[in-house]
Amino acid sequence: MPHTRNASFETIAQALGYSFDGEMKIGGNYVPAVQNDLEVYVSGQIPRVDNTVMVTGRVGAETTLERARHGAQISTMRALAILRQLLDGDLGRIRKVLRINVYVQSAADFTQQSEVADGASEVLYSVFGEAGVHTRTSVGVFQLPKNASVEVDMVVALNSSVG
Amino acid sequence: MPHTRNASFETIAQALGYSFDGEMKIGGNYVPAVQNDLEVYVSGQIPRVDNTVMVTGRVGAETTLERARHGAQISTMRALAILRQLLDGDLGRIRKVLRINVYVQSAADFTQQSEVADGASEVLYSVFGEAGVHTRTSVGVFQLPKNASVEVDMVVALNSSVG
Amino acid sequence: MPHTRNASFETIAQALGYSFDGEMKIGGNYVPAVQNDLEVYVSGQIPRVDNTVMVTGRVGAETTLERARHGAQISTMRALAILRQLLDGDLGRIRKVLRINVYVQSAADFTQQSEVADGASEVLYSVFGEAGVHTRTSVGVFQLPKNASVEVDMVVALNSSVG
Repeated sequence: MPHTRNASFETIAQALGYSFDGEMKIGGNYVPAVQNDLEVYVSGQIPRVDNTVMVTGRVGAETTLERARHGAQISTMRALAILRQLLDGDLGRIRKVLRINVYVQSAADFTQQSEVADGASEVLYSVFGEAGVHTRTSVGVFQLPKNASVEVDMVVALNSSVG
Repeated sequence: MPHTRNASFETIAQALGYSFDGEMKIGGNYVPAVQNDLEVYVSGQIPRVDNTVMVTGRVGAETTLERARHGAQISTMRALAILRQLLDGDLGRIRKVLRINVYVQSAADFTQQSEVADGASEVLYSVFGEAGVHTRTSVGVFQLPKNASVEVDMVVALNSSVG
Repeated sequence: MPHTRNASFETIAQALGYSFDGEMKIGGNYVPAVQNDLEVYVSGQIPRVDNTVMVTGRVGAETTLERARHGAQISTMRALAILRQLLDGDLGRIRKVLRINVYVQSAADFTQQSEVADGASEVLYSVFGEAGVHTRTSVGVFQLPKNASVEVDMVVALNSSVG
């Protein structure tokens, strides 16, 4: 039910305290999302709201697991906001979330990348239910663009019926 | 020939000295594998057997290339065990391994990520022959979940005929 | 227009000062590219020309952003050279570049992974125009095979019409 998904999206946005209604702009010769037949690829998203990266620094040293989970939630909401724009406002057209990759800027001994990624997975389940249950790869990287603590990308499948 | 692939899988499992017959459980709101039409995505696998990660630590410092290759083999066998479960026990339904990503927890000067990844590629070739010849991306990351030395994920294509 | 794309490829190769006409060989049980129906996956490419990796070292410490961008360009040209071989010399068969991943061997405080990745995106736009506008994930990793400064992989969609 498209209504429920869009409503869940707004509920989470309010709980996070941010609006994701702005246009998702990306500089350079690439785009936030590309559709190929019934598959959509979404570019890697950092936890940026407007022009501010909300969660920065190395997880396990300069910031906490809890903050990084929050960052994973924001990144995932950005990805969904991008999909919503692409799909004329209707997240109901998504049949299944296929894959997410979660990159965590990690301290040398920080090994809870999966726990950070749970923030992304929880958002997807809250919005899509069973259709949001996905495959996932979580790794600890050395740096991320703009010193972000986390970056999330995504591949989803669409329903074949329009609307 | 499905029989040969399943037999090869068992032969390698025995050579590694582990059983991959247990259910592949993952915590959280994600799953080990998602099928989309004739494509299957497999979540990132660390070299875990039952509840123990068999190969941990930074490759080139705390553990060796040889151990990490072993870890890549175990991770790949886990991915195949997941596919076998999804495909009702029949690895013969896999038409082609399309992509693997191999993430190696690396020391600052360890540059043999490809050699670690060869452990994964060898397993795939042993089980599938030409159908197991895939594309690959190998990178050296800073940390991995549970201090694993290596993580492997996968995308495969299925045969259109059932069984 | 296939002619234009192949010509653009050659123009960029000349500007970079390298030939990408040699056979793209990869050791081990994997291949540079795998086609699945109308999708092609390309293995991770480092900025290697013949047997020399042209851009090595940690970006932001041992080498510069500018050199790393150059490396991203070479890596992308290698990926296109591989696609050209697979497609019997005709880059015109590519309908859309779907995704690139750009891995940058980063210093601890180097946060311009997106600017490095722009080198890859620019090559794709120069060769393909709108069809080259893709999704992208850029991360900072700790090491790469052969101490490369950058690695790029790719997924593209083909036109359904042959030739």
